[in-house]
Amino acid sequence: MAASLPKRTTGCIRFDMNTPLRTLYHFAFDPHSRLVRLALGEKKLAFEEAPVKYWEPTDEFLRLNVSGLLPVLVESYDHGRNITLCENRAILEHLDESAAEVRLWPTDPQERGEARRLVGWFERKFDYEVNALLLHEKMEKRLMGMGAPNLSALRAGRDALRDHLLYFESLLEARNWLSGRHMSYADFALASHLSVIDYVDEMNWDRYKHLKTWYMVVKSRPAFRPLLADTLPGVAPSAHYRELDF
Amino acid sequence: MAASLPKRTTGCIRFDMNTPLRTLYHFAFDPHSRLVRLALGEKKLAFEEAPVKYWEPTDEFLRLNVSGLLPVLVESYDHGRNITLCENRAILEHLDESAAEVRLWPTDPQERGEARRLVGWFERKFDYEVNALLLHEKMEKRLMGMGAPNLSALRAGRDALRDHLLYFESLLEARNWLSGRHMSYADFALASHLSVIDYVDEMNWDRYKHLKTWYMVVKSRPAFRPLLADTLPGVAPSAHYRELDF
Repeated sequence: MAASLPKRTTGCIRFDMNTPLRTLYHFAFDPHSRLVRLALGEKKLAFEEAPVKYWEPTDEFLRLNVSGLLPVLVESYDHGRNITLCENRAILEHLDESAAEVRLWPTDPQERGEARRLVGWFERKFDYEVNALLLHEKMEKRLMGMGAPNLSALRAGRDALRDHLLYFESLLEARNWLSGRHMSYADFALASHLSVIDYVDEMNWDRYKHLKTWYMVVKSRPAFRPLLADTLPGVAPSAHYRELDF
Repeated sequence: MAASLPKRTTGCIRFDMNTPLRTLYHFAFDPHSRLVRLALGEKKLAFEEAPVKYWEPTDEFLRLNVSGLLPVLVESYDHGRNITLCENRAILEHLDESAAEVRLWPTDPQERGEARRLVGWFERKFDYEVNALLLHEKMEKRLMGMGAPNLSALRAGRDALRDHLLYFESLLEARNWLSGRHMSYADFALASHLSVIDYVDEMNWDRYKHLKTWYMVVKSRPAFRPLLADTLPGVAPSAHYRELDF
């Protein structure tokens, strides 16, 4: 069966032509999951959602991704073959290789490298310097039943967030999009992270003029709509979370 | 000038045909830097070395990569254009796109995704669960003049290392190479990390039969030789660090 399917090639990688059924294992307020939802939305690729409570992963989920990290994208092809892609390094590259009608890595090699650097920033820096403090205290502790936020951790997270925001503001002052002249995965990585922080009302947009203008543009894209409808049980979104003009 | 150079294309990305002068900003015992040295060696790409003491980064280095993370690869082309690639997510993808004679991502999409998952493992898990304890205590503290290792941190690092090694052993029991049927960046990521741990004499190879056999194969590749000649001031390598048959 598989051998008789039509193939197309991108460089020397071969993909089956038929459209797979896609299932995204994700958590609505995990920023890394949001990045992939935005990428799928921008590429107009339909997908089923399989919500995962990453703080209490099931054995089924750990069999898919032993690290327990989100998100995981499973593509099921007609002939019974699955492709399982764990975490966004694998997912984003695969989507640009296999669903290349809308490309979200820039074509210029320098801008492409810059976009990859910025996507990595959120995994290697932002996650540890901001999310591990601010989101852990304001969101994760509630999800995990760990009690009230620790105020000094919260303060340290806010300080770190301010430094990161000033950096992004400086980039967006000089560029149309985060990685340069073209919209890329880097924009969706930043928007994903800020959108969760915005939900828990920790974004002071008025201090960051260029960032605010950029966010209004990204937020108004159709791919963003599902994220604005997400609800975290027990936590109301900030007053402006759903507003396109804020 | 630039417009008159011959071009070749990979998908829709355009690269100049002339060979750039490459400079790698790295630290000899940073595992992420070692991964890129191995990748460049496997692809037979010459490069100049610019050593960086990442624990006391210079302003010049921070201008190249504001995160302060290693490694950074700068490609200088004849017509004066530079491409600066920060950290291995950007570097490894760029090298497979632009120097595609030797490909280090597998061509099969599932195995390709698996290789990317495993390369990410070292950044999102191994670095925090093992290196931040074991290498920090045994190597970094000495480099930074921070005194003797903390024994309980060292013990926690060794425990975490054992869990990771058992996982890699289970993969290599079932596969020829770490990500499947083909040698890939994932093999060089694992070998880079284990080689540094081996230098500081924390690898008990005899407990991991499949891992040991695999490491003997990877270690004997010509690209590995420069790593075996590295010396960390004040720390002698383990007795078997340089032996191909250990």
